[in-house]
Amino acid sequence: MAKPLVLYTAPTSNGYKVSIMLEELKAAYGNLDYDVEKIDLLANVQKEPWFIAMNPNGRIPVLVDRSHSTAAQPNGFPVFESAAIMLYLVQKYDKEGKFKFESGTDEESQMLQWIFFAHGGLGPMQGQVHHFQYYALEDVPYGKKRYGDEVVRLYGVVNIGLEGRDYLVGPGTGKLSVADLNIMPWVRLHKYAGVETLDAFPNLKGWLDRLLDREPVKAGLAVP
Amino acid sequence: MAKPLVLYTAPTSNGYKVSIMLEELKAAYGNLDYDVEKIDLLANVQKEPWFIAMNPNGRIPVLVDRSHSTAAQPNGFPVFESAAIMLYLVQKYDKEGKFKFESGTDEESQMLQWIFFAHGGLGPMQGQVHHFQYYALEDVPYGKKRYGDEVVRLYGVVNIGLEGRDYLVGPGTGKLSVADLNIMPWVRLHKYAGVETLDAFPNLKGWLDRLLDREPVKAGLAVP
Repeated sequence: MAKPLVLYTAPTSNGYKVSIMLEELKAAYGNLDYDVEKIDLLANVQKEPWFIAMNPNGRIPVLVDRSHSTAAQPNGFPVFESAAIMLYLVQKYDKEGKFKFESGTDEESQMLQWIFFAHGGLGPMQGQVHHFQYYALEDVPYGKKRYGDEVVRLYGVVNIGLEGRDYLVGPGTGKLSVADLNIMPWVRLHKYAGVETLDAFPNLKGWLDRLLDREPVKAGLAVP
Repeated sequence: MAKPLVLYTAPTSNGYKVSIMLEELKAAYGNLDYDVEKIDLLANVQKEPWFIAMNPNGRIPVLVDRSHSTAAQPNGFPVFESAAIMLYLVQKYDKEGKFKFESGTDEESQMLQWIFFAHGGLGPMQGQVHHFQYYALEDVPYGKKRYGDEVVRLYGVVNIGLEGRDYLVGPGTGKLSVADLNIMPWVRLHKYAGVETLDAFPNLKGWLDRLLDREPVKAGLAVP
């Protein structure tokens, strides 16, 4: 029988954000089951009409909630954009608020602030580093330097956010939340982005090690 | 007497998102008053320590809610990232849900999906066009083409989202929400981004005209 959720994904940072979120929820609540459909990005499957019908932007990840179909979406409710999918999942499944904060609190706003910081800054800018380092059809030193420098700066911003804390948001030293899980898959690829070590960012380094040590994170990084 | 909110901003698309949101809420509810502090971006005021204490990323806009101070933030609660500020404002002031959707509904998720689409795609990519067209210290044709092409593609995505609709989210032809206000200030600058006309995107063109015709939008575009 089809499982209630299906994740269309590929082995990229944005894909891992969602598979890690799913595995964290599964480990915390034990009642979450999902199918995975691997999308062949090199074959541009994500630009095919059936995929565009779920996400007009033609990008992975997309989550379809089969348990929730509507007249307009008889096969289930589609959710696009990695961060929107994570927020959909915690809204629906994180009933005890293990990875989020109560509606209307300062912490909820701070979580959103860090999510948007990563979604508008670290993600797209590190994506540009990867492009100019590995995928551009010509050597563009200006692009390599511009985005390489910006990623180093952005790592420094997260390092400030983690000063004296284990996690970005929450009382005391913080609580693991969507804010952290939304950034980590990018920072994990720091070498690939030309940042050989995180020694200059001790808070970030400790935080990354702490997250990568979690079993649900390891499980999420194995999907697909 | 100091007003309950203060917006640190500059005349950029991300700044206008928030001033327009504030003016829409003011027009709808009539009880919202805010101060404006214009930040001189060319003088790098946004990188000064007092600003970094509010936003470690050193970017405008930042909203400070003076009506809500904490032990850690005696001068008020700071909110950074344009989209996080808009969501903070509707959470606190849009009591009748005129610009948002009920918590946990499909429409709320769809609004977030479009907000993240713009925050991670249209905003940062159009920002790169502006950089390579006007601010780069050398001519980089590769950068001009890469980001110019991407912005055209992203306009096409919004055009799909607006098919048969007046606004991106909501029943029927939709309801004006944060989803629209979060994208519009970027699309408004299409000529500046090298897209001379929106004739190829009729839904987008009609939507932009509809939004620019609103008095609160005009008022927001006059701040600072």
